[in-house]
Amino acid sequence: MNTRFDSYRETTPGRANVGDSPDLLAYYGRLSELGAGALWTVANKIEPWQPVPHSAPMIWRYLDLREAVLRALKLVSPEEAGRRVIYLANPNRQDVAAAVGWLYSGLQVMAPGECASSHRHSASALRFIMEGSGAFTNVDGHKMTLGRNDFVLTPNGTWHEHGVAENGTNCIWQDGLDIPLVNALEAGFYEVHPDLRQAISYPIDESSSMWGSPGLRPAGADWQRRYSPLLKYEWEPTYEALCRYAAVYDGSPFDAIHMDYVNPATGGPVMTTMGASIQMLRPGERTRAHREVGNFVYQCAKGSGWSIINGQRYDWSERDIFVVPSWTYHEHGNSSQTEDTCLFSFHDLPAMRALGLYRQEALGENGGHQPIT
Amino acid sequence: MNTRFDSYRETTPGRANVGDSPDLLAYYGRLSELGAGALWTVANKIEPWQPVPHSAPMIWRYLDLREAVLRALKLVSPEEAGRRVIYLANPNRQDVAAAVGWLYSGLQVMAPGECASSHRHSASALRFIMEGSGAFTNVDGHKMTLGRNDFVLTPNGTWHEHGVAENGTNCIWQDGLDIPLVNALEAGFYEVHPDLRQAISYPIDESSSMWGSPGLRPAGADWQRRYSPLLKYEWEPTYEALCRYAAVYDGSPFDAIHMDYVNPATGGPVMTTMGASIQMLRPGERTRAHREVGNFVYQCAKGSGWSIINGQRYDWSERDIFVVPSWTYHEHGNSSQTEDTCLFSFHDLPAMRALGLYRQEALGENGGHQPIT
Amino acid sequence: MNTRFDSYRETTPGRANVGDSPDLLAYYGRLSELGAGALWTVANKIEPWQPVPHSAPMIWRYLDLREAVLRALKLVSPEEAGRRVIYLANPNRQDVAAAVGWLYSGLQVMAPGECASSHRHSASALRFIMEGSGAFTNVDGHKMTLGRNDFVLTPNGTWHEHGVAENGTNCIWQDGLDIPLVNALEAGFYEVHPDLRQAISYPIDESSSMWGSPGLRPAGADWQRRYSPLLKYEWEPTYEALCRYAAVYDGSPFDAIHMDYVNPATGGPVMTTMGASIQMLRPGERTRAHREVGNFVYQCAKGSGWSIINGQRYDWSERDIFVVPSWTYHEHGNSSQTEDTCLFSFHDLPAMRALGLYRQEALGENGGHQPIT
Amino acid sequence: MNTRFDSYRETTPGRANVGDSPDLLAYYGRLSELGAGALWTVANKIEPWQPVPHSAPMIWRYLDLREAVLRALKLVSPEEAGRRVIYLANPNRQDVAAAVGWLYSGLQVMAPGECASSHRHSASALRFIMEGSGAFTNVDGHKMTLGRNDFVLTPNGTWHEHGVAENGTNCIWQDGLDIPLVNALEAGFYEVHPDLRQAISYPIDESSSMWGSPGLRPAGADWQRRYSPLLKYEWEPTYEALCRYAAVYDGSPFDAIHMDYVNPATGGPVMTTMGASIQMLRPGERTRAHREVGNFVYQCAKGSGWSIINGQRYDWSERDIFVVPSWTYHEHGNSSQTEDTCLFSFHDLPAMRALGLYRQEALGENGGHQPIT
Repeated sequence: MNTRFDSYRETTPGRANVGDSPDLLAYYGRLSELGAGALWTVANKIEPWQPVPHSAPMIWRYLDLREAVLRALKLVSPEEAGRRVIYLANPNRQDVAAAVGWLYSGLQVMAPGECASSHRHSASALRFIMEGSGAFTNVDGHKMTLGRNDFVLTPNGTWHEHGVAENGTNCIWQDGLDIPLVNALEAGFYEVHPDLRQAISYPIDESSSMWGSPGLRPAGADWQRRYSPLLKYEWEPTYEALCRYAAVYDGSPFDAIHMDYVNPATGGPVMTTMGASIQMLRPGERTRAHREVGNFVYQCAKGSGWSIINGQRYDWSERDIFVVPSWTYHEHGNSSQTEDTCLFSFHDLPAMRALGLYRQEALGENGGHQPIT
Repeated sequence: MNTRFDSYRETTPGRANVGDSPDLLAYYGRLSELGAGALWTVANKIEPWQPVPHSAPMIWRYLDLREAVLRALKLVSPEEAGRRVIYLANPNRQDVAAAVGWLYSGLQVMAPGECASSHRHSASALRFIMEGSGAFTNVDGHKMTLGRNDFVLTPNGTWHEHGVAENGTNCIWQDGLDIPLVNALEAGFYEVHPDLRQAISYPIDESSSMWGSPGLRPAGADWQRRYSPLLKYEWEPTYEALCRYAAVYDGSPFDAIHMDYVNPATGGPVMTTMGASIQMLRPGERTRAHREVGNFVYQCAKGSGWSIINGQRYDWSERDIFVVPSWTYHEHGNSSQTEDTCLFSFHDLPAMRALGLYRQEALGENGGHQPIT
Repeated sequence: MNTRFDSYRETTPGRANVGDSPDLLAYYGRLSELGAGALWTVANKIEPWQPVPHSAPMIWRYLDLREAVLRALKLVSPEEAGRRVIYLANPNRQDVAAAVGWLYSGLQVMAPGECASSHRHSASALRFIMEGSGAFTNVDGHKMTLGRNDFVLTPNGTWHEHGVAENGTNCIWQDGLDIPLVNALEAGFYEVHPDLRQAISYPIDESSSMWGSPGLRPAGADWQRRYSPLLKYEWEPTYEALCRYAAVYDGSPFDAIHMDYVNPATGGPVMTTMGASIQMLRPGERTRAHREVGNFVYQCAKGSGWSIINGQRYDWSERDIFVVPSWTYHEHGNSSQTEDTCLFSFHDLPAMRALGLYRQEALGENGGHQPIT
Repeated sequence: MNTRFDSYRETTPGRANVGDSPDLLAYYGRLSELGAGALWTVANKIEPWQPVPHSAPMIWRYLDLREAVLRALKLVSPEEAGRRVIYLANPNRQDVAAAVGWLYSGLQVMAPGECASSHRHSASALRFIMEGSGAFTNVDGHKMTLGRNDFVLTPNGTWHEHGVAENGTNCIWQDGLDIPLVNALEAGFYEVHPDLRQAISYPIDESSSMWGSPGLRPAGADWQRRYSPLLKYEWEPTYEALCRYAAVYDGSPFDAIHMDYVNPATGGPVMTTMGASIQMLRPGERTRAHREVGNFVYQCAKGSGWSIINGQRYDWSERDIFVVPSWTYHEHGNSSQTEDTCLFSFHDLPAMRALGLYRQEALGENGGHQPIT
């Protein structure tokens, strides 16, 4: 047990500044017996001047991970594993299996002909397809075919299962989930589908055909659920959108050509807790640093570049994954002078905004660039 | 002055059923002196059992109109006319210059090099491009190029001006406005731009590049206005959307493959008072009849077919315009066995829904088809 | 038929300014045959520079009306009349039975033991109780007792019936409805209750007990309808609210101590098309003039004063009713130096706001006061 | 470090069930080097079948706490302590200073003439007044006087300071904050007011006079902030509301006469992360058990009774505080046969609902009553 109670003293007026004394120590002991404590012994700790991120900035290079991920094909079956996934473990968040903040991420691998059992949970999930052909997912009866850099949702409460067609190849995709957040909030339910498989209830890729057209929605379709009825965001139109946007827009100082994936029925985020974005840096483009309340998991979808996160440089190329913790300065650069580069990211900004906690701040000094440590 | 006060008697219990008598006639005279009247003399008239549309179903064939519209080129200049437009006059709504209900529609024609003066008004406006090349519109500094079957907005309160490039051809488009509604609501303001022209403040077609991509929006773009930031809906992706939708969907019994143009920032209608829709009937397809609270102005965008409106058949082909009044049964058919046909429409459903007045009803008898009178 | 087509010419650039000529007259004739017209012949008429109200300002003095209203007790029964109501007829709106704009108002009178038959309609209705004891209304099974100056709702689509208890007195209340608007929009449905009476399904005044407490709502009550679950707004807490507000607030320059009746489930207006407000002028208080897009029916609920509407003075005292048409300057004064005065009003601002048409403007000159004509 | 990786195996199909083997252990070692892990080693732990609350049910009796709280008056000054508060420490949540879940609660005590320095923070706060006279709080210039059982808000981002008038008595109130949640989300900012005191910018208790009247709001008041403009909910009208509600309503099977404090501008919760409720159990009333996703801190505001939480009985009387962790069965009883009893509570349901995570479940067996362990 802690023997000192005055470790967090600050001398700024308005902050707690109480030294230990025999009387106080006796008093603290009495409070402890009552299941209580003196706020001033912890106030400065639990009310920091600004957010204190617990996660470390991290990068996972696909070159390193890929071999390990593929090796899992030989070591476990989907039936044994539930899902055959290698998760990314932030060294400071191993207790909650998070990649950053309360966000989980993993790389799932499946071989041709395999199919994982169907389940549903309170956690929201998303996938970003990294390699292979023939992958599919089935979300509440909506079966979708998945190609490289496609982004797909399996929202809170939907039955879902994944697989690879017999004539496909080994497939790897990135999973993103809010499992740590849902656990922290003590809100997680999990169910295995009674049949382990669900039916295909709609034409293949029907959600894209109904909801994936710009500025149009099915007449009379009354969508009341709190996630996007568009479940798959294909790469080709997404990349095309970035190119069109880049043709008319100079770009954000912090994020260059930056678009959010949205729920077409509302214009809002794709799910209640997690959002996703895509951004392009043009040849040679470099952004300025800012920091945000929220956690980000990035994957390089195209090209190569670097990010400076909390003063440290991280170089990345296609399929590398890196994270930016909350309230941590970050800036990005494209390392090519001829090709654009694209970053996919998912994040908890919808949760932060829903709770009224989002903020951002530009780095004012040094032209908006962090000194590299 | 009316000398009888009992013209609307009904014998159904709960309805007014008061015959004139000398005492009552004297009483009605006294009420009239007081600026008042007896409700029971008009109640059955002003509280009908169901809506009584004042407008007539109508069709305007482009073959007839086109020559007249083009002749206006020679008769008046845009400077003289303000706008060189031939409006469609419903015989029952000539007093309010409406095509149907409280909706105005006209055909505007401009020659190469012409440009109408810039103005803005409380009325909301939309255009559907019928023929010609080189047309453009500028809405609050957003200049857009316009091609056949493009749908474009000039919302309530936005400065706008239209023209045709020097190297274009004579252009004709359909205007749709809620001028009659805004006048009826005594809410109309009108301003001519102080310079008669406004600046082009954004890259050409910038709104399409920012907001016209499926499932994506500019990150951080905070759109608070009550109309769509996407101002132009081009025909090519619209038709493609119908084809994709048709591939996965059997179609509505009343409207076949039917999509609403929407505000991508909200998923809702493009403007507060008027909406627009596009629908496709597949080769040989015929729908069943229903009726709705709301008024519709249709234009055939592709192919040919017929509609049965209030028991009367109207055949239409490309660019023909027809109207369906409120609470009037209507059903559509494609007259081709090999080609699809498409109907563009605009309507006042957003107003009806905002006020809580929308209803629809299927025709139950005769397999859902009206007997033709 | 009109033989001139150039009656609306204006010389301001950007406005239509086309004189008749033989060629044009022939052209107009041809257009007429086609069911069309030239916009420039009517543009300046249908696009006025600002709203042109059709209604006249009016006042109906209770002293005059009361005798006529009571006489109806002897002349017709509720069974014959449907409802025994004297409606207020704006001289410019007699065709649509409106008191102002598209708002209907009437005075309903019932004797002890009478009860009108139950019905429902698309029109929304409200009542403001003027005199008598024992009145009640039953709205979808919610029976409410009604006292002087109580304000009560019978929203769009709800079954309702009114009556007076056997031990009550003759009762008079003001009805306000949007019947003219609903008719103009061709959206009106009407049904007589199959039993002519409906059951009382809840404890008396249950809606007030559930929803009529400040800052509180029933836990878990999921209210999805588009009108207020609080159906009655009693006078005593309303007057008390004005007094409390007056104690901390200087007052609006135009409307003094001014509060809106609201839907406690949303904080928004009580119904979709019509709202209601209450305002207090303190002893000797006089407001400045402004004008608004929207129509207002006022009733003096307490005290006495005067209003200047479009430059004309109207003196009013308790239960007098007067109307202010759209975009018409109005200002109010309390004629007592010792007592406050209160004005109840209902209006179509919710419709104007829902459609994006609301505006207001202060009178800038002459210290904000209209010269009296 | 953990030497076993198969501690969470389950045999249910669809769940992870992989035993350790030398190959796998070597593989896990390699993954660890890569900053990764095998999901199947932790999946069953991080995806429980239903929420696993970390907090213990707890009760803090006022009799015990009061003496300790008052003693703090002698031991520290507000200047030294920042705020002189004794916080309630759930034994399982001491690391985050939470009373239950991510909710903090403490008892603050101030002597006549004392005033704590002004500050603001991202955490949202609320108070429930327990004893004493003369307490006040100032929230963004809105000074409010506080009496027994008044409930008052100091929302996210508002400057606030508390004190007791010179002629008051020692005052104790309960603080409720979401500090643990805001810290967990790494979103907390804290500022001391530059002057340590803020001005009083409005009449005393102005917020209650503007927004505290049932069914009325200030006309034209445009409230855009995400918390209630009504900052204080006084006890007298709250208790009266319960009595009125009880007169027309049988009561919820789980929570008897139960009302939520709401934002009158929206009808929604008072703040984005935390809500508050008040409930009454009539003489002798006993409820049935249910469980909810969300954490609750209760304080007995009137009378006495007991709660059964997770099968254990907790007796409480006025000012006792107890907590119910997420997804924990709870039921309540009034121990008096003659007096009603009231429970104030605050909770994180607004956060759970905003994130789409709320659920509840009734206890089906045993007549809805838990066996007491």
